[in-house]
Amino acid sequence: MAALEKLLQAQDDKNSILCVGLDPETGKLPEGIEKSPRGILEFNKRLIEATSDVCCAYKLNFAFYERYGVEGFEILKRTFEAIPRRNFSIADAKRGDIGNTSRAYAASCFEYFGADSITVHAWMGTDSVSPFLEYKNKLVFALALTSNPGSADFQRVESREEPMWKILIHKTKRWAPPSQLGYVVGATHPEELAQAREIAPERALLIPGIGAQGGDLAKTLEANAGSPAVINSSRAIIYASSGSDFAERAREECEKFNREANK
Amino acid sequence: MAALEKLLQAQDDKNSILCVGLDPETGKLPEGIEKSPRGILEFNKRLIEATSDVCCAYKLNFAFYERYGVEGFEILKRTFEAIPRRNFSIADAKRGDIGNTSRAYAASCFEYFGADSITVHAWMGTDSVSPFLEYKNKLVFALALTSNPGSADFQRVESREEPMWKILIHKTKRWAPPSQLGYVVGATHPEELAQAREIAPERALLIPGIGAQGGDLAKTLEANAGSPAVINSSRAIIYASSGSDFAERAREECEKFNREANK
Repeated sequence: MAALEKLLQAQDDKNSILCVGLDPETGKLPEGIEKSPRGILEFNKRLIEATSDVCCAYKLNFAFYERYGVEGFEILKRTFEAIPRRNFSIADAKRGDIGNTSRAYAASCFEYFGADSITVHAWMGTDSVSPFLEYKNKLVFALALTSNPGSADFQRVESREEPMWKILIHKTKRWAPPSQLGYVVGATHPEELAQAREIAPERALLIPGIGAQGGDLAKTLEANAGSPAVINSSRAIIYASSGSDFAERAREECEKFNREANK
Repeated sequence: MAALEKLLQAQDDKNSILCVGLDPETGKLPEGIEKSPRGILEFNKRLIEATSDVCCAYKLNFAFYERYGVEGFEILKRTFEAIPRRNFSIADAKRGDIGNTSRAYAASCFEYFGADSITVHAWMGTDSVSPFLEYKNKLVFALALTSNPGSADFQRVESREEPMWKILIHKTKRWAPPSQLGYVVGATHPEELAQAREIAPERALLIPGIGAQGGDLAKTLEANAGSPAVINSSRAIIYASSGSDFAERAREECEKFNREANK
């Protein structure tokens, strides 16, 4: 099954467009969990167990694992393994390099970790993205307009009356069909999200920036206009409680999100 | 000692501006080396032993290690450990994410792996690069104009009569002094390399693309005009021989490079 199909199926099954971002930091682990890299694996497993039927996807940001080196990479692998087959998985690795190197990154994320999708930097152009697109059954999210303040520095630079992020969407759209290539557009920019939808109505969007970063769910959904999208929330869910009830509280936050999103 | 100082010191000591790119692939390992991830570590160690006094730096592209997962990460760590203190090390990881995430990537590359420098994607803007710049004794190479064909797709897009890669240099220059921030500019673009030198004469440049990718050493050195630069060569050196003499042949290639560069 192609990845986009799997994503839409998971959204139907779970009645949810929510992606839970598993971005653990040892210092923030709740009561009852060992504050060590090993604790992270238990934390992740308990979160997945408590939420897999109320969210469609999990997004693992590689940085939070790589900081613990070899042990972190082991936990990353075992967390991917703990994600049920009916949930969609996103390797939020933000990779992008020249051809033979991107090929190795693709092998890492898709073959070794077995992720359904990956986030990529398209800055280095077509031959930096194409190795990821060779995996026809995977989904690639190119970083178009990210949720952070620095997104203004280059992504908003205007060229021939268009900002770079739109040029990026226009250009990369020609590289692969909607079943293979979507975009990251932050919830912190609802007006531009609507504009992205005009350029690419049929593409899957990975939308971060809800919650801690300030994005508004209702505005985001309105701007998205019912197109394929998966909305990520990390901290608001995984750190909903610092007590031993963290998993149940994470589940409650997912349910609350779903109620609001399904209104 | 600040990283740039260490780089210049290494260049003086070794009388070399050459960086050896350790980008191993199991399928290409020479005779007498086990064609497995474990073989990579032996290959790297023997290359380092044979070349550390005839090159100033080693560049490890993370992709070639990550494709082997946990085992690859272990080999990456042990390869960094095998680099002598008087050689400069480059984590060619091409990372770049929002603030707290880039902070975790910086901890991974600088603290866990102990690299002297890193390559970064600046596409996500100032808050994606600043966490790397918090390490005052490390050097950051932002991807300006890369050596691959796809560099034309976004890096060369013109805005107000300047290509994006120049806008990137102009803007990021304000983020940190030359001791902390340099650029990747590919040897495949000698004219633009000269232009980069006009904008940023005092910045360290990491220059890939010599050899297999088609960049010309003499043209590159002329365009660089004696400014701080480290020139990377990977395949032409590490795969100079597929026989059991690969390490000696790698050393000979380094010496040949140095003779040409020091003319």
